[in-house]
Amino acid sequence: MKIDGKAYRTIWLAPDDWSVEIIDQTRLPHELVIVPLKSAEDAARAILTMQVRGAPLIGATAAYGLAMAIREDASDDAIDKQIEFLAKQRPTAINLRWALEEMRRAVQNLPREERAAAAYKRAAEICDEDVETCRMIGVNGLKIIEEIAAKKAPGEPVEVLTHCNAGWLACVDWGTATSPIYQAHDKGIPVHVWVDETRPRNQGASLTAFELGRHGVPHTIVVDNAGGHLMQHGKVDMVIVGTDRVAANGDVANKIGTYLKALAAQDNGIPFYVALPHSTVDWTLDEGMEIPIEERSGDEVLKMPGRLPDGSVVTVEIAAPGSPAGNPAFDVTPARLVTGFITERGVCPATREGLLSLYPERR
Amino acid sequence: MKIDGKAYRTIWLAPDDWSVEIIDQTRLPHELVIVPLKSAEDAARAILTMQVRGAPLIGATAAYGLAMAIREDASDDAIDKQIEFLAKQRPTAINLRWALEEMRRAVQNLPREERAAAAYKRAAEICDEDVETCRMIGVNGLKIIEEIAAKKAPGEPVEVLTHCNAGWLACVDWGTATSPIYQAHDKGIPVHVWVDETRPRNQGASLTAFELGRHGVPHTIVVDNAGGHLMQHGKVDMVIVGTDRVAANGDVANKIGTYLKALAAQDNGIPFYVALPHSTVDWTLDEGMEIPIEERSGDEVLKMPGRLPDGSVVTVEIAAPGSPAGNPAFDVTPARLVTGFITERGVCPATREGLLSLYPERR
Repeated sequence: MKIDGKAYRTIWLAPDDWSVEIIDQTRLPHELVIVPLKSAEDAARAILTMQVRGAPLIGATAAYGLAMAIREDASDDAIDKQIEFLAKQRPTAINLRWALEEMRRAVQNLPREERAAAAYKRAAEICDEDVETCRMIGVNGLKIIEEIAAKKAPGEPVEVLTHCNAGWLACVDWGTATSPIYQAHDKGIPVHVWVDETRPRNQGASLTAFELGRHGVPHTIVVDNAGGHLMQHGKVDMVIVGTDRVAANGDVANKIGTYLKALAAQDNGIPFYVALPHSTVDWTLDEGMEIPIEERSGDEVLKMPGRLPDGSVVTVEIAAPGSPAGNPAFDVTPARLVTGFITERGVCPATREGLLSLYPERR
Repeated sequence: MKIDGKAYRTIWLAPDDWSVEIIDQTRLPHELVIVPLKSAEDAARAILTMQVRGAPLIGATAAYGLAMAIREDASDDAIDKQIEFLAKQRPTAINLRWALEEMRRAVQNLPREERAAAAYKRAAEICDEDVETCRMIGVNGLKIIEEIAAKKAPGEPVEVLTHCNAGWLACVDWGTATSPIYQAHDKGIPVHVWVDETRPRNQGASLTAFELGRHGVPHTIVVDNAGGHLMQHGKVDMVIVGTDRVAANGDVANKIGTYLKALAAQDNGIPFYVALPHSTVDWTLDEGMEIPIEERSGDEVLKMPGRLPDGSVVTVEIAAPGSPAGNPAFDVTPARLVTGFITERGVCPATREGLLSLYPERR
C-alpha cells in the first residue's frame, strides 16, 4: 500500500540482496523509520520488541531471519537451533511456527551449499504468497460489504468496526481485516471504519488509523470501551478483525479485547467476521482455550509514547505511581460468537466443518 | 479517606466559611492540588472540566455552587437561572439535577435574607448525607463480599473488578463501588481489585488505583480490553461499578465500556453489581435508552497527560496525526445484565419492583 504516494511493503530484501529492511512499527505513527535486519538475532529482536507485529508479518520476518542464519551456517543442527530460537520470541501467533516449518521443509533435503539460496527463495515466496492471500481475503470479504451496501441508502457508508491492526502493516501488503475495506473503498463503495484504539499498545490509533488515513479511507478512532455503545445505537454494520491463531473448532485468539467486541456484536445482532490466511489455523488444537496467551510487561500499560507539541517523541508515565499492572496480550473469542471466517479461499462458518469445507486437504 | 495519613473529603467549606475547596482531580495522580471555588461559575467550570467528577460529587459541588450564588443574589429569578446554568454543565449524571432540586426546596419558601444560610446548611447536609449513604452502601455490599470470601480457601483474596472511579474521589467520602471493598479490607478480608484503566480519561488508572494504593488495598491496573479474558480464566469473583443514572426499570448509565464488562460477566456467570445512592435513580425515565449520553471532545482520545522522568507533567499526542476521534462518555447497561443494586437501604434486583422494594415511597 502507499504512504504519501510511495508504495511500500512491510518487509523487503535490501539492495545488498541478503539483508532485509522493515518499517519500525514502534515508531509509527510519530515517525516513519526504516530499519535494517542483518541476522536472525536482528529478526528475533524485531519480533520481540514489536518493530514488526501482526501474525503474517511475524512469519515473514522469521522466514528471512532464518534465511540469514542459514547463509552463515547451513548445518541441520544450526537450522534446528535457529528455528527454536526464532519461534520462541512470541508464543501466540501460529504463523511464526508455520513459516519456520515451511522454511525447514524448503531446505532440509538439500545439500548444504544449496540451502541458503533455497531459503531466500522460500522466504520471498512466503512474502509474495501472503500478498496474494491477503488480496484474495479482500476479494472474498468485499462481497459481504457489497451485500450490506446494497441494503443502504445511496451514499450511506457501510460502517465497519475493527480492533487492533490487521492491516497491511500486520502483513506484507493489503492486510487481512482491512483488505475487504481497501477493496471496497477503491471500488467506490462508501465505507467508514470505527478504529478501536487497542490499548495497551494502541495499534488501532497508531497503525490502523495511520494506514487508513494515508490511503484516504474515512475513519474515526474510538476508545476500546466505545464499541458496545456504537453497536447499541445502530452505528456499526459489521465487525472485521484479524487473528493470531484459530483452533480447529473455530475459536479465535486475537488481540486482547476482541472477545468483548464479539459479545457486543452478538448482543446487538451485528455480524462479526474474522479474516485470516490458511496459515493462521492451528489444526493441532481442538479448542481455543489451549492457545498460549502471552503476558507482556506491565510497563506497556503504565507508560505511553507520544508527541510533544515540538514534534519530539517522549514516553510518559500515565498511571498512579506505585500501582502494578497486568498485561495479557490476547484473548480467545469462542467460535459461537463468530459469524464467519473470511479466508483466501472464501467465507465459511466458524466451525471445524466450515474450515474443512474450505481446506478439504486437512480432512 | 486518607492520603498519606491525612484524612480528606473531596469537597469542604473553606476557613472563610463561604467558599469551598476541592481536590483538582484533573491533576491526579501526578499532583495533589487543592483548588478554591468562590462562585457558581467556579463550581460550573470545575464540573465541566472534570476537576470534580463522579455523580455524587458533581451534585455536592453544584449544591455549594448554588449556595455561593444565593449568597450574592437570593431572588427567585436568580436561583432559577443559576440552577439551569449549573444543571447543564453535564447531561448524564442525574445527581446533579437531584442536588439542585434539593437546594431549591430548601430555600424556596423562605424570606430572601434567610436563603443563603439555609442553602449552605442544605449543601453541608447533602455532603454529610452522601458520606453516610456511601458508608451504608459499603455495609450492605460487604455482605456480598463476605459470602464470596466464605467459599474461598483461607487467605485467598476475593477478586473484584471495577470500571472507572466510583471511589471516594467520585463522592464525598467512602465511594459507592469502592465502599464495600474498603470495608472488607478494613475488616481484614483479603480483597484484590482489578482496576480497569478506563479510557479515555483513565479514571481507573489515575484515580481508583491512586485511592486504593493510598489506602493500602491490593490492586492491579489492567487495560479495559482485559476484563473478559480475566473472567474467562476464573480471575474475577464479582464486578462492582457505580452509575451516573439508573432508569426506573433498572437500566444503568455508567462510564463508557461498562456495558462490555456486564456482557462478559454474564457470559462467564460472574455477578455484576451496581452500587448507587437513592439520588442516582431517575424515577421519571422508563428505560435507560432515554438517558442523554454526553459526547465529549475527541482530544480526550487523541491526547494523554503523563509524567516525564523528571516529574514534570506534559500532554502528548498519541494517535495518527490527522485522524479524528469520537468520544461518547457513557453507555447504558441493560438491567437484564445486572445481578443487583447495592444501595444505602440494601441490595435488590435490577428491576422496577426491586427498586420499589427498597424505596416504597416511590410507589
